[in-house]
Amino acid sequence: MPVKDVVAERADKYVGWLTEACSISSLAGSPDELERMAGWLEHRFEDLGAPSERLVFEGAPDAVLATIGDGPRRVLVYDHYDVQPVDPIELWNSNPFEPTVRDGIFYARGAADNKGDLVARIAALDVFHDLYGAPPFTLKFLVEGEEETGSKSFEGLVSRYAAKLAADGCVWEGNGIDHKGRPEIVFGAKGLAYVELLSTGLKDDQHSSLAVVAPSPVWRLVEALSTLRAPDGRVLIDGFYDDVVPATDEDMEMLRALPFEEDAERERLGVEAFVGGATGLELVRRYFFEPTCNIAGIIAGFTVPGASKTVLPRHALAKLDMRLVPDQSPTDVVAKLRKHLDERGFTDIEINSSMSMEHPVRCRTDSAIGRAAVAAANEMFSEEPAISPMMIGTGPMYPVARTLGIPTVSPAGVCRPDSNIHAPNENCRVDDFLRIIEYTVGWLRAYGNLDE
Amino acid sequence: MPVKDVVAERADKYVGWLTEACSISSLAGSPDELERMAGWLEHRFEDLGAPSERLVFEGAPDAVLATIGDGPRRVLVYDHYDVQPVDPIELWNSNPFEPTVRDGIFYARGAADNKGDLVARIAALDVFHDLYGAPPFTLKFLVEGEEETGSKSFEGLVSRYAAKLAADGCVWEGNGIDHKGRPEIVFGAKGLAYVELLSTGLKDDQHSSLAVVAPSPVWRLVEALSTLRAPDGRVLIDGFYDDVVPATDEDMEMLRALPFEEDAERERLGVEAFVGGATGLELVRRYFFEPTCNIAGIIAGFTVPGASKTVLPRHALAKLDMRLVPDQSPTDVVAKLRKHLDERGFTDIEINSSMSMEHPVRCRTDSAIGRAAVAAANEMFSEEPAISPMMIGTGPMYPVARTLGIPTVSPAGVCRPDSNIHAPNENCRVDDFLRIIEYTVGWLRAYGNLDE
Repeated sequence: MPVKDVVAERADKYVGWLTEACSISSLAGSPDELERMAGWLEHRFEDLGAPSERLVFEGAPDAVLATIGDGPRRVLVYDHYDVQPVDPIELWNSNPFEPTVRDGIFYARGAADNKGDLVARIAALDVFHDLYGAPPFTLKFLVEGEEETGSKSFEGLVSRYAAKLAADGCVWEGNGIDHKGRPEIVFGAKGLAYVELLSTGLKDDQHSSLAVVAPSPVWRLVEALSTLRAPDGRVLIDGFYDDVVPATDEDMEMLRALPFEEDAERERLGVEAFVGGATGLELVRRYFFEPTCNIAGIIAGFTVPGASKTVLPRHALAKLDMRLVPDQSPTDVVAKLRKHLDERGFTDIEINSSMSMEHPVRCRTDSAIGRAAVAAANEMFSEEPAISPMMIGTGPMYPVARTLGIPTVSPAGVCRPDSNIHAPNENCRVDDFLRIIEYTVGWLRAYGNLDE
Repeated sequence: MPVKDVVAERADKYVGWLTEACSISSLAGSPDELERMAGWLEHRFEDLGAPSERLVFEGAPDAVLATIGDGPRRVLVYDHYDVQPVDPIELWNSNPFEPTVRDGIFYARGAADNKGDLVARIAALDVFHDLYGAPPFTLKFLVEGEEETGSKSFEGLVSRYAAKLAADGCVWEGNGIDHKGRPEIVFGAKGLAYVELLSTGLKDDQHSSLAVVAPSPVWRLVEALSTLRAPDGRVLIDGFYDDVVPATDEDMEMLRALPFEEDAERERLGVEAFVGGATGLELVRRYFFEPTCNIAGIIAGFTVPGASKTVLPRHALAKLDMRLVPDQSPTDVVAKLRKHLDERGFTDIEINSSMSMEHPVRCRTDSAIGRAAVAAANEMFSEEPAISPMMIGTGPMYPVARTLGIPTVSPAGVCRPDSNIHAPNENCRVDDFLRIIEYTVGWLRAYGNLDE
């Protein structure tokens, strides 16, 4: 019987698994529910004949590592079992932890990010086992519980369990299916340096009449910020681009094949032009290969719209998030920011870099696991896959792909542009969920037939 | 019996009046309490034989105008009966509307701003009447109820009742007593143009990864702001200084006599240097004669300290408060700001100028009422008066001093640097309150003896 038909026959069973998984509110700060979710996974893996163990790191929920199949070649599969918070809860049309299907769409927190893919992959093992027996390679299923709060322990955990995690290829958390139904396959992720700039300088808030003699920490912050970025988006931090690896001719070929609906995207954003007026291939190049310096937040003083209070605020705070590209390093970029500010006399502006820091990473696209992901997508989807060098977002891919040196690919997953990940009414389409089961069986088979 | 002794003998009675006045929570948005306060004033004036009437303006609490004494010369006295909000209420050591005296200090909302002076002046009429009979000139007591929310209706009210308010001199709401016990006498007020700058440009907040192609309204605002002011405090808005009247040699003489404790002020503010590194006489000149462009508030995006959220905010807001000096006009300054931004391509930055707008104003110091205020201060206080050209803050003095053309002076009042006006535990010293009664009798007598 074709895989498609087997999956269709068992649809209720697998949607049932997804319902069970999404009924567990595995939120950061809910240790009991995180533990329940880890236990649910152990139970599922055990049923499939895959022994699992806990990977322990202080302060983080246990990660679950399950192993199935055998043979000298090894594939690591990465997913996470924690989910985003549900606020604003009042905008949900149904309880985020009481999954419901309406019009063929499965609604629950985690439906798309990332329990949909996680459960589809487990279901694929079930199908694969019944149709073909154990995989002809060792499959290691790593599921962590700290992704939605920045995978702070992941680098340490990966280093601690490097030997157990060693593999020839890694399949990352699923990417998605784009608005034209193209499966998205991605070979890297941008990095992130997230810092706060704090400008202080007065003991207390003062009546604004004193601004005539008392220096303003807010103006000071604005002056410092204005040295960091040009209006065309170019980052002006000294040395910021030193380690940026430019797109190669091959990269540009990859980008040329990538769909980018400029008009639709401008319309969606509500803007007249993109940053720096970029269009065409240059826009696509920027999208994937340019780092950014974004102000994620800024606050000082009195901020009630439409009201007036005359205050000279005693401090001001800006949050910068800088998306990095290979081979920029987040700690190096923060050091350069410090130096840049110091050299311009802004030694008084404090930098807090205790928040998110992630290395950017790219992987080669010609690895066996990469080729398997593409080959299976070509077979399973009616639309051509959209293959791109990096996610423009950030994930903890670096420790696996660079520290352990495992070629990594993020293949198509259940997430659609309207899946509302990190938002109310998160969802995935039931038929996408079933197709991703089928696709997973597809790349498992393809990988078995390919040489490294 | 000397005035001092009469006041001392009646101290309980007048502190009782102040207690009554400060027991009424005449807050903006509490029409019943504002009305109670207006009624209390009418009753007090009636007891003194001063008929009063209501000056009515749509949307504003009624102002009370009481008249006492007679004769062709006319003095207008300005005070207000409304008070600042009490938040943060938890920082008060006693109920703001249950006045209490501890260690000779009277605590209540309004104690210093401005019920202390208002009641002291009414008490002075009582003393004056009993010692000398009716004043040998017409005293018009104008008490408005909208000062703490910007006296939005005051200009219209003054124009409507111009004939009733006509006078040869005006005594403004009391100034204060400085930290060395010097009575402060002031002949003007800076103006204010308070605006919001709003930068929009995206339909919705976006994931910050999209900052690589989507223009940032926050950066746009920072770029616009950075064209408005130099680090040394100079305002860069084109034409901003066009109408500024520089300090004359006479003005500099006045400033030379003014105490300014640089070290103490730097220490109090917690700063190493003043704006632009100014010191000495230049610092004092700036203090009184320079306009400012202050950022009273700024907000965009995610602002929780120490936490990270990667967002490209869809809009950003800054609040600018610009203190103006004669002869700048707030509407003209806002028009110049608009033109300045437009000429630099910032046509997309919206300006909201529907909040506070006040004209700056200066009055001559040699008016009879001005001389009376200084002469009485010389007689009544052991310290030399500190005479200055303008408050560095703002009050609605312009409609009286410029529209009606009445020479105006703000004489010493009960407010000390530690009176906590607009803050928790507002207070005035009981002996200051009694001294201001005595001082008011003093300038009433002095004015009667002086020629215009």
